[in-house]
Amino acid sequence: MPLSDLANLVVVLVRPRNPLNIGAAARAMSNFGCRRLRVVNPYRLAFREARSAVGGSTLLKTAEEFDGIAEAVTDCALVVGTTAVRDRKLDHPPKKLGEHSAALIYATLRKARVGLLFGSEKIGLTNDDFSFCHWLMTIPTHSQNISMNLGQAVAVCLYELARDIDLPAPAEDREPASAEKLEHITGGLLEALHISRYVKPGTDKMFEKKARQLIWRMNLEAYDAKLLLGMVRQIVWKLRQSLKN
Amino acid sequence: MPLSDLANLVVVLVRPRNPLNIGAAARAMSNFGCRRLRVVNPYRLAFREARSAVGGSTLLKTAEEFDGIAEAVTDCALVVGTTAVRDRKLDHPPKKLGEHSAALIYATLRKARVGLLFGSEKIGLTNDDFSFCHWLMTIPTHSQNISMNLGQAVAVCLYELARDIDLPAPAEDREPASAEKLEHITGGLLEALHISRYVKPGTDKMFEKKARQLIWRMNLEAYDAKLLLGMVRQIVWKLRQSLKN
Repeated sequence: MPLSDLANLVVVLVRPRNPLNIGAAARAMSNFGCRRLRVVNPYRLAFREARSAVGGSTLLKTAEEFDGIAEAVTDCALVVGTTAVRDRKLDHPPKKLGEHSAALIYATLRKARVGLLFGSEKIGLTNDDFSFCHWLMTIPTHSQNISMNLGQAVAVCLYELARDIDLPAPAEDREPASAEKLEHITGGLLEALHISRYVKPGTDKMFEKKARQLIWRMNLEAYDAKLLLGMVRQIVWKLRQSLKN
Repeated sequence: MPLSDLANLVVVLVRPRNPLNIGAAARAMSNFGCRRLRVVNPYRLAFREARSAVGGSTLLKTAEEFDGIAEAVTDCALVVGTTAVRDRKLDHPPKKLGEHSAALIYATLRKARVGLLFGSEKIGLTNDDFSFCHWLMTIPTHSQNISMNLGQAVAVCLYELARDIDLPAPAEDREPASAEKLEHITGGLLEALHISRYVKPGTDKMFEKKARQLIWRMNLEAYDAKLLLGMVRQIVWKLRQSLKN
């Protein structure tokens, strides 16, 4: 299945401080097929050459700069702010990044632009910034360290938005080994175990069962079974030789 | 709902080149409650002070260093390799990161350690590295730029693994074999193949990989691994004898 189309998604970095992070955001955007990068009041202006934008340098060069959030999201039908903060007194607590929030964003993305806001590395988005957002979103993280790196946060959000919802238990594309092959392997293994005296006289029946169960439980694919059978046969051949000496 | 418990997850960075990325991986780990970082042959040794590990510096200081993947995953019951490459000729194509693969990993994570491998920034994991993996996983990305930044790839994988999911049907109650046992079986099998001349001179490396993949893909339970190891050892003992004659 193809990735979801993120052509209408606008990533807005608000007051980013480190050009490397802007580059990293651009790289993640290019990884997930997202092309519109906007930057509001970057701390350092020389971000366009950031070497961290591997594969995303065009995106970095065409990034648009704005003086305020209002101007940066003027063409967006939905604006979502990201935040690590959960207990700041918010009228509307953030939604967790996940299938539900992704579906909400995607419902708009189908037909109009959506702005996804990320705050500065130091303090994130402020309450003022929040006022431009329809709602807020947070990446579920461990309480011991809730603050993510900017580039990593962008990557995680875009991954969630781009991924096709996994259908349960996709049929595996594997060709199982035939019972006949498994029996041949079992037979070879048993002969090797006989010659090498792993199987004590009188215990043949028990070991035959043990060996067969072992081989069958390996759940071998056809390719692997063929490989294993070749190996076992060669070993048996060598062991037989030792009997002649 | 709380995040999934990732205490048993071991993040293994194989030949990472940039200390900033190692720090970023540590930061993402701390964001998602993952504490075991292992590094195999880092390009630069001075990674422990990387400033990018905001909130993850303890984790960086206690990271363990290893000379090889085998040593780094010896206590892991499942080893999953990450790769961006989809069309390299692989016998077993990678699974996509998503609910299904996360559920597979989590089924083992409940009771045993799982190693999640990330390759170097330049070339990722090699075919040799793949041979230590039970299976491979890829982050679904846009075809125009499939290669993710290391720190961002770690963040995305851990986000997917940590997020609360409704697990399908409770995992079966099986105790998986340790990587150490699997390596012993692989070693024994290789010796048997050498003595019986299945392995032609000069093809050792290729066969080591082939044999390891075969054994690891068997997905053995602890009981079966013990049984198989005993058999292989006995066969090797007998084959060694034949050399003396």
